[in-house]
Amino acid sequence: MGGAEDKDSNPVILERFIAVCGGAESRIAVIPTASRLDDTGERYVRLFTELGAGHAASLEYKEREDAARPDWLAYLREATGVFLTGGNQLRISTILGGTDVARTIRTANARGVPVGGTSAGAAILSEHMIAFGRSGATPRAGMVSLAPGLGLTNRVVIDQHFRQRDRIGRLLAALAYNPFAVGVGLDEDTAAFINADDVVEVCGSGAITVVDASHIEHSSMDEASEGDSICMTGIRLHVLTEGGRFDLHRRIATPPGREPVD
Amino acid sequence: MGGAEDKDSNPVILERFIAVCGGAESRIAVIPTASRLDDTGERYVRLFTELGAGHAASLEYKEREDAARPDWLAYLREATGVFLTGGNQLRISTILGGTDVARTIRTANARGVPVGGTSAGAAILSEHMIAFGRSGATPRAGMVSLAPGLGLTNRVVIDQHFRQRDRIGRLLAALAYNPFAVGVGLDEDTAAFINADDVVEVCGSGAITVVDASHIEHSSMDEASEGDSICMTGIRLHVLTEGGRFDLHRRIATPPGREPVD
Repeated sequence: MGGAEDKDSNPVILERFIAVCGGAESRIAVIPTASRLDDTGERYVRLFTELGAGHAASLEYKEREDAARPDWLAYLREATGVFLTGGNQLRISTILGGTDVARTIRTANARGVPVGGTSAGAAILSEHMIAFGRSGATPRAGMVSLAPGLGLTNRVVIDQHFRQRDRIGRLLAALAYNPFAVGVGLDEDTAAFINADDVVEVCGSGAITVVDASHIEHSSMDEASEGDSICMTGIRLHVLTEGGRFDLHRRIATPPGREPVD
Repeated sequence: MGGAEDKDSNPVILERFIAVCGGAESRIAVIPTASRLDDTGERYVRLFTELGAGHAASLEYKEREDAARPDWLAYLREATGVFLTGGNQLRISTILGGTDVARTIRTANARGVPVGGTSAGAAILSEHMIAFGRSGATPRAGMVSLAPGLGLTNRVVIDQHFRQRDRIGRLLAALAYNPFAVGVGLDEDTAAFINADDVVEVCGSGAITVVDASHIEHSSMDEASEGDSICMTGIRLHVLTEGGRFDLHRRIATPPGREPVD
């Protein structure tokens, strides 16, 4: 989720997240570590409960030593869904990186438990995370800083508040380093649901921007100096709205209501 | 290999690399993509041949379109060892990232083919690669830039010319983002051989510096501003010389001539 998802009048994204976690049977672990506000976790617990989740609890990891709490680890191991809130993604990686909490989330996801997040909580999910960067449409050397995330997939690099904060330049700069991954830029109130076959489906009022650099012909990233515009040729770009899909294996985009074509 | 490995009077590192690749039966694919010099690849071909390799060939990938050359891919698929030269690691990731060459190297390594490199060629091997950064002993926010590498392992972050270029600060800064990986700082003329059980063994005239941040108690990375010194507590550090070992799974360091202790 790209941040600022609708929580009141039309909460389709949160409702769909609850549904994939098991609906009335779900037990959702909320991890508010990215946020410095005291009530972020409890706010999502109330939201999930009001919207029909079976159970939800906020695991308030604030320091690295919290990661060893057995009661929270037990809840996490039994959870049918995990949700990471917004805030600063570096708080999640510095506080939970290399701990049993990170291992438990990876193991759960590998056996099919949905793991989602909004804003910083979306950025942290992939192996290569955009830690911070500058706005602007043109990729420039040094405008983006990557850090290791939770590592649920290395197929995507995720960016959020995408249109609202003019971030296509930094997503392109991230892919210029190494074009093997797919860039996924999430608008606010918009989510990318990735299924077990690595097909992304769009949900929400905005769009996701998919940047496929696997056929890039040339990039000047290796010779660019700090602040230089980066030359990149041969990038494929897709803007997908509600119901649109992108197959991360076959790299095929399908508009809403159509069938995938090879 | 941390760069500047002895090629003349005492080439123990290159000899050991040839030995693990099969010695007189070896076929070594040299990839000089990091270098902008014309003779880097052929120089290593001559060196490997003189030092007893069965065969060696330089695959001169200079543009992304070169990655499709069938004769070079065929050589790479049959190789019993792959060697990446020094230069600029971002040339390797921008030119070979996401291509059949990168996939073939990963597949070969997964079935047991040794893949090694010196300097930039060492940095590129891991999932999280130090792309560039600044010197200095103290970790500071923004002093290191990470990029996705070849992804043969995500257990280590590799730095090179380690003592010679005063790089412990940038290695600590890289681990401050997310302490799950182990930092391996390679001095010049020094190599870390990682075996199939993920045990590192040191070879060469210098040392390797192992930074284990898995027990870090606190880091201020998430709240540091550009250029600020980063507070990090509870890091374990080992300096290992020829014959010293480090078990990447159990995180145990063993001095030369000793047996591992739990």
